Amino acid sequence: MPRRICVVVTARPSYSRIKTALSAIQEHPDLELQLVIAGSALLDRYGNAVDFIEKDGFPIAAKVFMVLEGENPTTMAKTTGLGVMELTNVFYNLKPDAVITIADRFETIATSIAAAYQNIPLVHMQGGEVTGSIDEKVRHANTKLADLHLVCSEDARERVIKLGEDPAKVLNTGCPSIDLAKQVLHNSSLDFDPVEKYGGVGVQLDWKSGYIVVMQHPVTTEYKEAKLQILETLRAIRDLNYPAFWFWPNVDAGSDGTSNGIRSFREMENPRNIHFFKNMEPDDFLKLLKNARALVGNSSAGLRECSFLGTPVVNIGNRQNRRLRANNVTDVPHDRQLIYEEVEKAIAHDNYKSSDIYGDGDSGKRIADILSSEKLTFSKTITY
Amino acid sequence: MPRRICVVVTARPSYSRIKTALSAIQEHPDLELQLVIAGSALLDRYGNAVDFIEKDGFPIAAKVFMVLEGENPTTMAKTTGLGVMELTNVFYNLKPDAVITIADRFETIATSIAAAYQNIPLVHMQGGEVTGSIDEKVRHANTKLADLHLVCSEDARERVIKLGEDPAKVLNTGCPSIDLAKQVLHNSSLDFDPVEKYGGVGVQLDWKSGYIVVMQHPVTTEYKEAKLQILETLRAIRDLNYPAFWFWPNVDAGSDGTSNGIRSFREMENPRNIHFFKNMEPDDFLKLLKNARALVGNSSAGLRECSFLGTPVVNIGNRQNRRLRANNVTDVPHDRQLIYEEVEKAIAHDNYKSSDIYGDGDSGKRIADILSSEKLTFSKTITY
Amino acid sequence: MPRRICVVVTARPSYSRIKTALSAIQEHPDLELQLVIAGSALLDRYGNAVDFIEKDGFPIAAKVFMVLEGENPTTMAKTTGLGVMELTNVFYNLKPDAVITIADRFETIATSIAAAYQNIPLVHMQGGEVTGSIDEKVRHANTKLADLHLVCSEDARERVIKLGEDPAKVLNTGCPSIDLAKQVLHNSSLDFDPVEKYGGVGVQLDWKSGYIVVMQHPVTTEYKEAKLQILETLRAIRDLNYPAFWFWPNVDAGSDGTSNGIRSFREMENPRNIHFFKNMEPDDFLKLLKNARALVGNSSAGLRECSFLGTPVVNIGNRQNRRLRANNVTDVPHDRQLIYEEVEKAIAHDNYKSSDIYGDGDSGKRIADILSSEKLTFSKTITY
Amino acid sequence: MPRRICVVVTARPSYSRIKTALSAIQEHPDLELQLVIAGSALLDRYGNAVDFIEKDGFPIAAKVFMVLEGENPTTMAKTTGLGVMELTNVFYNLKPDAVITIADRFETIATSIAAAYQNIPLVHMQGGEVTGSIDEKVRHANTKLADLHLVCSEDARERVIKLGEDPAKVLNTGCPSIDLAKQVLHNSSLDFDPVEKYGGVGVQLDWKSGYIVVMQHPVTTEYKEAKLQILETLRAIRDLNYPAFWFWPNVDAGSDGTSNGIRSFREMENPRNIHFFKNMEPDDFLKLLKNARALVGNSSAGLRECSFLGTPVVNIGNRQNRRLRANNVTDVPHDRQLIYEEVEKAIAHDNYKSSDIYGDGDSGKRIADILSSEKLTFSKTITY
Repeated sequence: MPRRICVVVTARPSYSRIKTALSAIQEHPDLELQLVIAGSALLDRYGNAVDFIEKDGFPIAAKVFMVLEGENPTTMAKTTGLGVMELTNVFYNLKPDAVITIADRFETIATSIAAAYQNIPLVHMQGGEVTGSIDEKVRHANTKLADLHLVCSEDARERVIKLGEDPAKVLNTGCPSIDLAKQVLHNSSLDFDPVEKYGGVGVQLDWKSGYIVVMQHPVTTEYKEAKLQILETLRAIRDLNYPAFWFWPNVDAGSDGTSNGIRSFREMENPRNIHFFKNMEPDDFLKLLKNARALVGNSSAGLRECSFLGTPVVNIGNRQNRRLRANNVTDVPHDRQLIYEEVEKAIAHDNYKSSDIYGDGDSGKRIADILSSEKLTFSKTITY
Repeated sequence: MPRRICVVVTARPSYSRIKTALSAIQEHPDLELQLVIAGSALLDRYGNAVDFIEKDGFPIAAKVFMVLEGENPTTMAKTTGLGVMELTNVFYNLKPDAVITIADRFETIATSIAAAYQNIPLVHMQGGEVTGSIDEKVRHANTKLADLHLVCSEDARERVIKLGEDPAKVLNTGCPSIDLAKQVLHNSSLDFDPVEKYGGVGVQLDWKSGYIVVMQHPVTTEYKEAKLQILETLRAIRDLNYPAFWFWPNVDAGSDGTSNGIRSFREMENPRNIHFFKNMEPDDFLKLLKNARALVGNSSAGLRECSFLGTPVVNIGNRQNRRLRANNVTDVPHDRQLIYEEVEKAIAHDNYKSSDIYGDGDSGKRIADILSSEKLTFSKTITY
Repeated sequence: MPRRICVVVTARPSYSRIKTALSAIQEHPDLELQLVIAGSALLDRYGNAVDFIEKDGFPIAAKVFMVLEGENPTTMAKTTGLGVMELTNVFYNLKPDAVITIADRFETIATSIAAAYQNIPLVHMQGGEVTGSIDEKVRHANTKLADLHLVCSEDARERVIKLGEDPAKVLNTGCPSIDLAKQVLHNSSLDFDPVEKYGGVGVQLDWKSGYIVVMQHPVTTEYKEAKLQILETLRAIRDLNYPAFWFWPNVDAGSDGTSNGIRSFREMENPRNIHFFKNMEPDDFLKLLKNARALVGNSSAGLRECSFLGTPVVNIGNRQNRRLRANNVTDVPHDRQLIYEEVEKAIAHDNYKSSDIYGDGDSGKRIADILSSEKLTFSKTITY
Repeated sequence: MPRRICVVVTARPSYSRIKTALSAIQEHPDLELQLVIAGSALLDRYGNAVDFIEKDGFPIAAKVFMVLEGENPTTMAKTTGLGVMELTNVFYNLKPDAVITIADRFETIATSIAAAYQNIPLVHMQGGEVTGSIDEKVRHANTKLADLHLVCSEDARERVIKLGEDPAKVLNTGCPSIDLAKQVLHNSSLDFDPVEKYGGVGVQLDWKSGYIVVMQHPVTTEYKEAKLQILETLRAIRDLNYPAFWFWPNVDAGSDGTSNGIRSFREMENPRNIHFFKNMEPDDFLKLLKNARALVGNSSAGLRECSFLGTPVVNIGNRQNRRLRANNVTDVPHDRQLIYEEVEKAIAHDNYKSSDIYGDGDSGKRIADILSSEKLTFSKTITY
């Protein structure tokens, strides 16, 4: 009987981080995929990842509505509690041989608790990375609840081992997001018109002779400063007067500040060089990044996918603090003038050489192979 | 304004581990105690710790009913989820300056999530210890969610630091349970009659010329073997025919096995040397331990309080695996014959010299001083 | 495709009230039974109805742990809230064509809300009866949420119609519990030894030349008086010195009073004519009632099953207030002397003639036929 | 000690239905107001009623986040379950002498259960009215759980009594919303510019020589037809080419259909005579209605406030089915042509004479007086 592998996707970004692994699990003769879509991945306001997932042909074993409205720290905590209750039911019914929790968003610990407390082997992906926010607390707590660690870099592998995990249970598979990046690495040009395909709002751009991409999320624990921070970036990009595709942030606690900042800037200043998108299919987004002159903001895609694609990145603020990065990344504080200058330099810079610090483009298959062969356990002890 | 320190007690054993700290917090001019009683600490079936607590004069800021009946891994997980939701409300209303979570029981992570996600500084007590069960996963996950660590031994301190915590935030206070032990260390005899004061069931014992104490909890992840394991101990103690005070286990998942084992053994074999208690006030329990010829079972009191009291301990099975122990402890597997032999030797052995590996008896005051003076933060990053 | 009929059983007594209907649904070619066992029906402390149900061969579609420990009004309310959340999931997954909620216990409204709000036709059984406690509020609220009413008597039918329900949707099927009673109606003697088969505690009784049965539940809204009330009955029965089989109450809020009353009376007075049982298989219980000289207490079995069996009943207090009764029932307040006198008379009285006010013994089949043929709707309006 | 009266407001429209009663309770020497704001009344997307309430100077005793995102029948049911759990905590902490639940929205039954199960006297306002949707089931279920009924019309009073309630406990106070209407009844003109004060989207209107107001909510149980229904109204109003202020619907399950209908119509057809608002302060809304040539849609304000104001109403579809109405209301199905014709007639018609079928404008004070003097009980039985 094939092993039942239950993967819980709770947010749009996690899907790109797991997609090629899902395919590889589904195709593997010794594995059976049980895909659970939960939390904001089900909600319209957060980009409705479930639509992409169904369009990609993955059957969904369970949908879990668990997001409590309010978008503040209190509702985040309660959403997590509710998630534990709901996911406990789901795992009780699906009886998986292993559960996979991905990365570090606040609700991922709900998956970990629901599995670990029911004695189901827990696999954590993307452990061992460093960010410096509440997400980092959650990420390392997930590591301590998990039985098997599939990490994305040597740097992360060393950190998970230092956390007292058995080295034999910490495997560097690289990140499945790099598998997707590999597919677009040698595309010489953008083969679709972003505005035509995705609509969005704002002025029409003449992007064919060059454009940048901007994506800046709120930083949870700096909640109130989010609006001030986003305004620095908005002004810098407006001043540059270079075509920019701007993506709305994830809606976490604090999004009010960032989203309101963007919304009021748009209404009052009507910037002539910016077009705004809500979201984009992962493949198209990678093509857009590959062909961009630069990525600006604080998206982890700048460190991860762009290291492989070679796209120059201007990384703003401390959201990606201490995360592993290749030489395509320049860091800059929330300062309009400095952002302006660094983006200008990035636009002028050639693409960088592709780096494999986050994987070589073959992670999905590697993950499926490990899940089919590795011994699955649910009990462990710290190594020191 | 004094700092509001919110302490969440979810189980009877945790209360002894925090009691002198509660007093010290309450008496400290710069601190205000917000005591929350939750989970099984409120329930009759689990010893109704809340009664002892109220009798000791601590005002209770909130009571949280959160235990879902069923006593299986699924209800344990859901109780934790419900606990997150309920405690989030409690902290939202109490607005503490710091929240204290204690040790490693499954529901303690509910306290951690409810505090950490609401950006309230989280203090973890008793981090860094090793046990080898689901409790250990929870303990180290609590460490990764906490901002300040008040540990009970140098051994634990080193482990928490290895887990990537800032050494300046890891303080060895010793365990408040040793403060209580200190008060009875020099008692030369038992000053109350256990059966008269606490009732219990089973035969009358002539304990005045010597007795042992037995306390054996189920081991969560070995759930089904619990009954077999407890029967080995029951038979060994019956065969010894030495007066024994036996305490019912905590009721966790698996308790069915242990409790049923005890119940059916009692009914069928009616052992002539055993008297059973449900629970005892912490002070009386310590006196009982101090004057016992030996403690048998797998209670952590054997390693902790008994190291200070010098009482010989026969520790059965792997529940206390790898935990720090002084030379008063002998380990033995779940084997009737070996248990018999080691308990016989322990009874014959003198008390050991008092050890301070878990504290010097002044922890409560030390903890209150730290809580009043240490900078309280809610953001951190791993040290490596 | 057969209609999927989802029946939710949340307590031991409800099972007897639905058992023959479950069989008839299961055997009906146009119906598919989806049996959900929830709440106290899953718990050991409440008689573990699930064991009887599985032994009777009914497959269980879902088990729902939803009882929050504490046994007070606050945990009753929260259990109901949790039940709504859990049962909503269950119905979402099972996709029934109709949901059946039974009678009036506090948690039955959880079934009603979870079905009605999801636009699933809701069938309420045992509507229209009168009791006078919180249960009655719940019963009539269930009526107002339900789309089809299968009632047990003409009296109940008229009341449901007066409540503004369409007469065409209110059908008197009789009570399935009478179907079970019919099977034992002509048994001339008790064909098993209750103590041998069910154990229990208390003295051995010489019951062969006559015995009574006692069953007295706490009355929720008189919570604090429960202990005083049960003591009146205990003393009356002790004074009578006639063999009595006494059943422990359901454990609701207030059970503390009743259960503690029984427990302390037993320990202090050690009554020589009473044997206590926790519970009994429904068929055996009916045989016990059929052959008893009287049923004493406030169980609804006195009004319902005993009307058909003809057993004399001494009904104590106001729990069955205003409920339809045949001439086998004598009412008496919580007064030791009056209870004594009326039970003495009942013992001396012959069995009464069988009454069909609660059904003719063919309800189960009638219910299945209705469920297979009646139009199922989920929208209605009041008739006046 | 004054009686503590806990009022739970869960939605924007309920606030207008209770506002003058809140003031009267607050000012009454024998009453203490405990105002709880819960559910969508806290959420930005639903008009953020809490802002109006705080601006009006009412202190808030508790805020309860309980809305589960998803806007479908399943999340509605689960929101209600969560509401029971949360409100149970709130009442447990506030210890009110009575709890008030208002009207019939799906989550109002959460208030009823949380109070009734904890033996707190429950007052239901606006019982006895008829609508024909899931809301009506909820309204009458609330009646059966409540102990005191403060209804808005003689028609409603008779219906509640027919439902088996004690006539002495069913008091016609009239609706507090009429108190607000009374304050604007004699305003001869609109004293603010709606677009200037409230923004909104759509074309600028020349409303000074006449305008209509449109407000059409989705009908829950017709979920999928909502989009088709709203398009009929949109086309009729567009064709009329008469200035129209259009209010976005409440966001319930089904709102997708209605909201999407409005959104896509706006984008594709860009109607030249419609301006859209999200919401308006209650007083301003009443002034707007008073001075409108007609109200169109299915808002209960058409039957209620407009009966008193005398504004002509074209009521579309079955949402207000069988509700009491004065002669200012004309009913019309979801048919573009018929809507067009009836709105045209309504515009041409003079205002109607003020009717007091829903109250005389003095309800708030009457309610406070009753709450201060009426005996408060929590136990009842049906009258027949």
